Amino acid sequence: MKSQVIFTNQVEKALADVVRDIKPGKVIVLTDSNVEQLVIPSLAKVSADIGAAPVISIASGDSNKNLDTAMYCWAELAKLGATRHSLLINIGGGVVTDLGGFVASTFKRGMHCVNIPTTLLGAVDAAVGGKTGVNFNDLKNQIGTFSEPDAVIISTAYFNTLSDTELLSGYAEMIKHALLSSPEAFGRVMRYDIRQAKTDPDGLLSLLEESVKVKIKVVETDPYEKGIRKALNLGHTVGHAFETMALRRQKPIPHGYAVAHGMVVEAILSSMLTDFPSTELHVLASYIRENYGEFAFGCKDYEALIELMQHDKKNDSPDHINFTLLHHAGQAVTDVTIDVDKITAALDIYRDMMGL
Amino acid sequence: MKSQVIFTNQVEKALADVVRDIKPGKVIVLTDSNVEQLVIPSLAKVSADIGAAPVISIASGDSNKNLDTAMYCWAELAKLGATRHSLLINIGGGVVTDLGGFVASTFKRGMHCVNIPTTLLGAVDAAVGGKTGVNFNDLKNQIGTFSEPDAVIISTAYFNTLSDTELLSGYAEMIKHALLSSPEAFGRVMRYDIRQAKTDPDGLLSLLEESVKVKIKVVETDPYEKGIRKALNLGHTVGHAFETMALRRQKPIPHGYAVAHGMVVEAILSSMLTDFPSTELHVLASYIRENYGEFAFGCKDYEALIELMQHDKKNDSPDHINFTLLHHAGQAVTDVTIDVDKITAALDIYRDMMGL
Repeated sequence: MKSQVIFTNQVEKALADVVRDIKPGKVIVLTDSNVEQLVIPSLAKVSADIGAAPVISIASGDSNKNLDTAMYCWAELAKLGATRHSLLINIGGGVVTDLGGFVASTFKRGMHCVNIPTTLLGAVDAAVGGKTGVNFNDLKNQIGTFSEPDAVIISTAYFNTLSDTELLSGYAEMIKHALLSSPEAFGRVMRYDIRQAKTDPDGLLSLLEESVKVKIKVVETDPYEKGIRKALNLGHTVGHAFETMALRRQKPIPHGYAVAHGMVVEAILSSMLTDFPSTELHVLASYIRENYGEFAFGCKDYEALIELMQHDKKNDSPDHINFTLLHHAGQAVTDVTIDVDKITAALDIYRDMMGL
Repeated sequence: MKSQVIFTNQVEKALADVVRDIKPGKVIVLTDSNVEQLVIPSLAKVSADIGAAPVISIASGDSNKNLDTAMYCWAELAKLGATRHSLLINIGGGVVTDLGGFVASTFKRGMHCVNIPTTLLGAVDAAVGGKTGVNFNDLKNQIGTFSEPDAVIISTAYFNTLSDTELLSGYAEMIKHALLSSPEAFGRVMRYDIRQAKTDPDGLLSLLEESVKVKIKVVETDPYEKGIRKALNLGHTVGHAFETMALRRQKPIPHGYAVAHGMVVEAILSSMLTDFPSTELHVLASYIRENYGEFAFGCKDYEALIELMQHDKKNDSPDHINFTLLHHAGQAVTDVTIDVDKITAALDIYRDMMGL
């Protein structure tokens, strides 16, 4: 099944159209405690039915993206008499769309599902592409499915409540898509000021559409991540390790920040191994340092970081660490196996470049 | 993905071939406490590697087909360093293949999976067709996926340890397939003596192959149960209600027995509503009564039974109860909505026919 992806700032109208096409037996809304009050009242504008739909609200934050929360949702769906012909509308950030997508794809072996991301990160990354999942045993997205929602409605209408940190977190994935797209696209994201996005919802929507379409094109070619889809993991092998380490330190960092720092390390590896131009590396590293600060770690953390990279889902076996690298912006190389010495060297260079 | 389904009594050779085709990074075996000692030692005959593969053993019985057991399996897989390139071999009855299929389809969003059913019920029903799942909140198979294993190896080699009850439980699904296939196939299963099957492994394998191919043909046409696959639910709308009621009474009955009694009720409904021939109804009812006994309930249980039917996954909404009925053996009618009065009448007739 291929999702319908709609870019619009007329969310209510788009949702009304989508629901009319699906003709669900029953509609249920899944959201989180942050989003609930901001967004749910506007659903009454879609239709009286949607406005009156029951709402399942989960606690916000990645620490709640787990099986306990999924079980709570499954139990609520059962209580509400949901069937496989019912529709779950996931409105929220990546936690809501990842977890809600997993819940919907496994409830009675699959019910209808529509994603409406309310964060930039969710819009650019989590809501599109059919990856669903929850964290398990301290590891991210360990349990999940490949399952496309019926539709995704992408808008910038909800972003004016986002903090700069949240905007930057989402913007990291836009930088990634630009790096996978072309030098021109990379140039455009390096020049755009995401902090000004709130005053420019339509300009951002247009840049966002360009960015999401990079992902859609890749996912359509390779929905189950057998080949080229791995390119989308750029920044994530190291990024996930940073993110998990931060979590273990009980100082969690936003996903996009972890990816931003991960992209710098992987761009360093790309310049070492696949001729990624030094100028682009320095443009990227300066941009990240200036906007995202640095992810602090020392030599004594290398072993733990490398072990986390070994546990990455993308690996064939724990003995090989697989990376996506870049020849240049617009040309990725997937499945590059890199040995521990080179990773150690790249971590050293990252710390140098970031002044650590 | 379409499963390779292999009918053979040379299981070890077939498994060796399958593993060679998949080329998994790592092999892990999932089984249950009943099967472990009987079957696992024979794996050494496949290859030294498979013989030495780590074994995850779960407690046997449908009451363990739940999320706690799934979580145990996910945690074990993570501990063993399994990746999405690893292979999980599910060896056991329907609990192992249903739960193992769910675990494999959701671990890191999907790893390789092969099913080797060791019971007749598992062979004829659970191991083929891509339905995976676990029970949740007292309801059967509420959480699961549609996900085909890479291969299913079907043999009668393990059946000599099965009790008559277990053989009859599986045989109920073979009766169902015959009812969906043709009057001749129905005649053949009514004449075959399943209690003698242990002395006739190759004869049973041949009848089993005919039976499983009925299911495969239906599933290939309609993998996600949008239409004709619902025919396979014959006997199950009422059967699941019987099964759940028995569980609530803490006197569980085997799945196949529940389906056998459910088929009688649904054949009664078919004779009331869709001209199912009275002679075939009486042949079926006598066969079931003679071999499976009766499922005892009284008028005071009707309300609870009907409520359980309303909760069936197949329903569009709790207000309609959907049935698969038969015009005659070989011609099913799906999506027949039946109102409560007629169901009550059919339950009355069932009790009459069974002498309750």
